[in-house]
Amino acid sequence: MIEVFYAGDAAPDSERVAFGGAEARHICRVLRHRSGDRVRATDGRGTEFELELDLVTARRVEGRVLGRSRLSREPRKRLALAQALLKGDRLAAVVEAATEIGVSEVVPLLTERVVARPGPGRLERLRQVAVSGLKTSARTVLPRIAPVTDVAGLAGRIAEFGQTLVAYELESGHGLDDVLDRSADSFLLVVGPEGGLTGQEVLTLTRAGASCFSLGPRRLRAETAAAVGAALCLQALGEMG
Amino acid sequence: MIEVFYAGDAAPDSERVAFGGAEARHICRVLRHRSGDRVRATDGRGTEFELELDLVTARRVEGRVLGRSRLSREPRKRLALAQALLKGDRLAAVVEAATEIGVSEVVPLLTERVVARPGPGRLERLRQVAVSGLKTSARTVLPRIAPVTDVAGLAGRIAEFGQTLVAYELESGHGLDDVLDRSADSFLLVVGPEGGLTGQEVLTLTRAGASCFSLGPRRLRAETAAAVGAALCLQALGEMG
Repeated sequence: MIEVFYAGDAAPDSERVAFGGAEARHICRVLRHRSGDRVRATDGRGTEFELELDLVTARRVEGRVLGRSRLSREPRKRLALAQALLKGDRLAAVVEAATEIGVSEVVPLLTERVVARPGPGRLERLRQVAVSGLKTSARTVLPRIAPVTDVAGLAGRIAEFGQTLVAYELESGHGLDDVLDRSADSFLLVVGPEGGLTGQEVLTLTRAGASCFSLGPRRLRAETAAAVGAALCLQALGEMG
Repeated sequence: MIEVFYAGDAAPDSERVAFGGAEARHICRVLRHRSGDRVRATDGRGTEFELELDLVTARRVEGRVLGRSRLSREPRKRLALAQALLKGDRLAAVVEAATEIGVSEVVPLLTERVVARPGPGRLERLRQVAVSGLKTSARTVLPRIAPVTDVAGLAGRIAEFGQTLVAYELESGHGLDDVLDRSADSFLLVVGPEGGLTGQEVLTLTRAGASCFSLGPRRLRAETAAAVGAALCLQALGEMG
């Protein structure tokens, strides 16, 4: 079992890496590491460090860098997920699963049929969940949590990506394999809220260049659709093992 | 939005379908259906009924069958999921997602590194979650919830399936596409607990005929692995749209 700790402040060429706050407490108190232990850490921007710990307290943990590597467990192609806001902690569940699966960014999306409203501190909570997913999955790139965006704003970002794919339950007959452009290097996957995207919203996205596809005849809850859609994209691109 | 109610007692050739208990209350009190409304129902064994309601009370709802169809949204190939027991309500989350995705059966699996223990009423709770997932996803086949089985017992069931696939994190280099036998008609997917299957358990399964595959270099929590594994299998078999 690889443990990978998160040290967002570390520079790629650091000779030493330090942890404070919850991460130091976790390393010291929960996992009971000691000076001399070898552990791994990542800066969340693609570098993984091998460390030998030489200071372990509940407030601060430090280690000497023995080696560094880049990106070995990361997808070569970039997949962002725009997920309509969901009630309760369900968007957090989507961020966690999407981080493990390998997305590069999550865009919380405000659509007409969204019932939830983004409260204060919501984005910071999602960012913490992404850090947790990064550590669970031993990734070395922390997915970005974008500001909440509406459909018009998302349409304005479509040009940033090689292909934008909208999971749309009324799009029967076209599965992912029928529409995926394997030659593209970056993808944006759009998943609607429980009540679905409206026809007008889908039109706004397709006019800006997005393609619609179906996740099949069985209706998926939004959080299942997000995880399944992201995994099927990365699998089709050869990124799931 | 298709509503599909669950009437597990209905016979495929019934002229009338009746609902009691929570389903009747839900139809009458929550959704406020009335006599004359047309709704859909399924027996959970592959038949979907179109009904015209002619009795609607909170205790009992009845309708006349206007039409029936079979299996239109169901996978043609059968995929069972053996999932190691998980703590809290996480096995229920797996059952819900797996039901939406399209599995035919969930086998709760007791392995060496399982921490959770199946309490009384646990299987009945999982069965209720499967009914809920059936209705959410508008499926017409209710996945079976098998009794809790150990690894030796599961190995004894491998001959029932065309292929058994074990998601194994130490199996790097062989993705699903490398091992999947697309000519088989039925599959058993095995997903371990948080700590993973032991080498001995994997050996027991492979000696009985199972194949191991990797879900990629990023480590997935068990519930993510179950949903992703099931979706990738059904996608590779052409069952995800």
